[in-house]
Amino acid sequence: MISEKMIAMAKGGSAIRAMFEEGNRMAALYGRENVYDYSLGNPNFPAPKALNDAIHHIIDTESDTVHCYMPNAGYPDVRMAVAENLNKRFGTAFTDANIIMTVGAGGSLNVIFKTILNPGDEVLTIAPYFLEYGNYVRNYDGVLTTVNADPVTFQPDAEAIRAAITPKTKALLVNNPNNPTGVIYTEESVRALAKVLEEKSAEYGHPICLISDEPYRELAYDGAVVPWLTKYYKNTVVCYSWSKSLSLPGERIGYLCIPSECDDFQMLFDAAVVANRILGYVNAPSLMQRAVAKVLDEKTDIDGYNGNRQLLYNGLKDCGFESVYPDGAFYLWMKVPGGDDKAFANAAKKYNLLIVPGSSFACGGYVRLAYCVSPDMIRRSLPAFKKLAEEYGL
Amino acid sequence: MISEKMIAMAKGGSAIRAMFEEGNRMAALYGRENVYDYSLGNPNFPAPKALNDAIHHIIDTESDTVHCYMPNAGYPDVRMAVAENLNKRFGTAFTDANIIMTVGAGGSLNVIFKTILNPGDEVLTIAPYFLEYGNYVRNYDGVLTTVNADPVTFQPDAEAIRAAITPKTKALLVNNPNNPTGVIYTEESVRALAKVLEEKSAEYGHPICLISDEPYRELAYDGAVVPWLTKYYKNTVVCYSWSKSLSLPGERIGYLCIPSECDDFQMLFDAAVVANRILGYVNAPSLMQRAVAKVLDEKTDIDGYNGNRQLLYNGLKDCGFESVYPDGAFYLWMKVPGGDDKAFANAAKKYNLLIVPGSSFACGGYVRLAYCVSPDMIRRSLPAFKKLAEEYGL
Repeated sequence: MISEKMIAMAKGGSAIRAMFEEGNRMAALYGRENVYDYSLGNPNFPAPKALNDAIHHIIDTESDTVHCYMPNAGYPDVRMAVAENLNKRFGTAFTDANIIMTVGAGGSLNVIFKTILNPGDEVLTIAPYFLEYGNYVRNYDGVLTTVNADPVTFQPDAEAIRAAITPKTKALLVNNPNNPTGVIYTEESVRALAKVLEEKSAEYGHPICLISDEPYRELAYDGAVVPWLTKYYKNTVVCYSWSKSLSLPGERIGYLCIPSECDDFQMLFDAAVVANRILGYVNAPSLMQRAVAKVLDEKTDIDGYNGNRQLLYNGLKDCGFESVYPDGAFYLWMKVPGGDDKAFANAAKKYNLLIVPGSSFACGGYVRLAYCVSPDMIRRSLPAFKKLAEEYGL
Repeated sequence: MISEKMIAMAKGGSAIRAMFEEGNRMAALYGRENVYDYSLGNPNFPAPKALNDAIHHIIDTESDTVHCYMPNAGYPDVRMAVAENLNKRFGTAFTDANIIMTVGAGGSLNVIFKTILNPGDEVLTIAPYFLEYGNYVRNYDGVLTTVNADPVTFQPDAEAIRAAITPKTKALLVNNPNNPTGVIYTEESVRALAKVLEEKSAEYGHPICLISDEPYRELAYDGAVVPWLTKYYKNTVVCYSWSKSLSLPGERIGYLCIPSECDDFQMLFDAAVVANRILGYVNAPSLMQRAVAKVLDEKTDIDGYNGNRQLLYNGLKDCGFESVYPDGAFYLWMKVPGGDDKAFANAAKKYNLLIVPGSSFACGGYVRLAYCVSPDMIRRSLPAFKKLAEEYGL
């Protein structure tokens, strides 16, 4: 009864479940407090109180209308509030006509791929990358192609990107700040990217869309600036989610921003609204649309994540491990002694450490540690890392 | 920049917007109270107070966890509560292992189509039908085929369905209670359908899935029974939404029920969970999952809709119009004098009446009136219908 594509997918899906079940099995055996789970990007800090207050207020004052249908692109006043917030921060000139509220960034990405991809079109992304991108692109019979980031800085390598773009490349997909490396693309990197995209668009006679997946935008440390990409290249769209910035991953609320200067803007926007409707999303969840619009200036506990970042980075350094010092997101990208990341992640399990091999992001030789966990867990885990380091002769 | 499929879709989408804008234009000209808008299925009764109370309570007591990720299929306790509620009402034996929480019925339908359709597979549905079905099926390169309902009763015509099933038919999609006719499929109709599906599955050597789209299940009048289809045919899946039963269309919350007796059950369920994830839904909105689970026995204002039903049906009868007396949903399916439904819907606009031609549901000769409106609007509209009737010589 199952489609051929999905038979393979359903079997592949069990790898993820296996890790989840492994964590539960270990917790049952050793106690939850003795298992150090760095595998999942589920924010440990709860949503800001202001968000919950906003929900109470909306239910008390708008209960007759808040659960109803609205235009498929979302409430016009919510979209305008999002646009004005972006304008205030980035000097842009968006209005509600540039914003589509979506079911998280997963929704935004599917909507833009549905909107632009013909079968066989290529979407280029930079490895390491979130493997779900491949599924999203293949949903529309596109082909995900990849190019490696700089092997030391993990910044995009503009010349490698130039070489990887083909006449079939419809889009370049970037994730900034980056999962899994924690790297923030610098303005210099972005300018180089934009130049390549402009030249290649001209060479092949059609626009190459820059798609920026930005759920980690607000997670930037030490005053690091995350460039707003629509200012550097006109055919840029931004896929955003409040999953991480307001700790709302379960609520599925985000937006797709399509600037007016994009080629074929109005048709592109209209087509994206139709895609949002016919993919069965219909519209982004209504109560959450209204709630996030009331707390656009709220932040999650950046200081808390920053504390975790330093605790884990320094703790692992003291054990002898070498990591990319992360400027953003809540992931640490750690080099594996000897380079066999799968063997290393397996060895880590002996010490009740759950970490994700870099191969799961198409980049072996590293592991990803999600430090959106309690600082106590980090502290308790360091002796286990010490033993792991000793096993590896560090 | 836009995909070839979506260029056509974006242009087609403007027909819907045109009707919406027509309503706004008329409201600005004549005053909102003098425009009688029967076009949209947006419930007029607000969500039950108990639902809003549940949201307050959840925010007060579960604020640290309610917005987080959970398994992609949804919270296990929510899925178990849904299963037990179905068991209590229909004598089934579902558990959480049979329920996937989804982004409304639009989400459920896309998930099951993604899960089962190979390119070129046919999904058969019964006209008149909700035209979005075609988009949902085409998302997965399936082909929507149609067969007419009985032209008098609008019950499914089992023999016509038998004749319309081909070796490529992967599923029969039904909507019960029906949009746009308001008809509820009788147990006799369902038994006849099940028999045809069993025989044709055997003849072609592969199961034909029965997909029941049931957002109107709870809207049944005068004690009418809506048969629970999984009890009649083993390869049945149910797509549900609380959009209408709890007046939550904007919140996008529903479920997909896959009974254990389905062929390849476990793989089918696992594949559907993966489809739910990779289509970018990831999971159904978390707060709404927890909220609906607390009010599963709540009902919308059925008496209110019933009052509207009788007021409109009788009012139109007094004008000389003939309609199908609806047993369920909140739609009246009215015969058009002379049979030209588009001309009739246009003529109705002269009297500030907004109604949808049956052609928009692939069945000319009728119009659909959505009576999820205030009874006052119905009363105020009747003189306008009287004039329309007179224009048509009734």
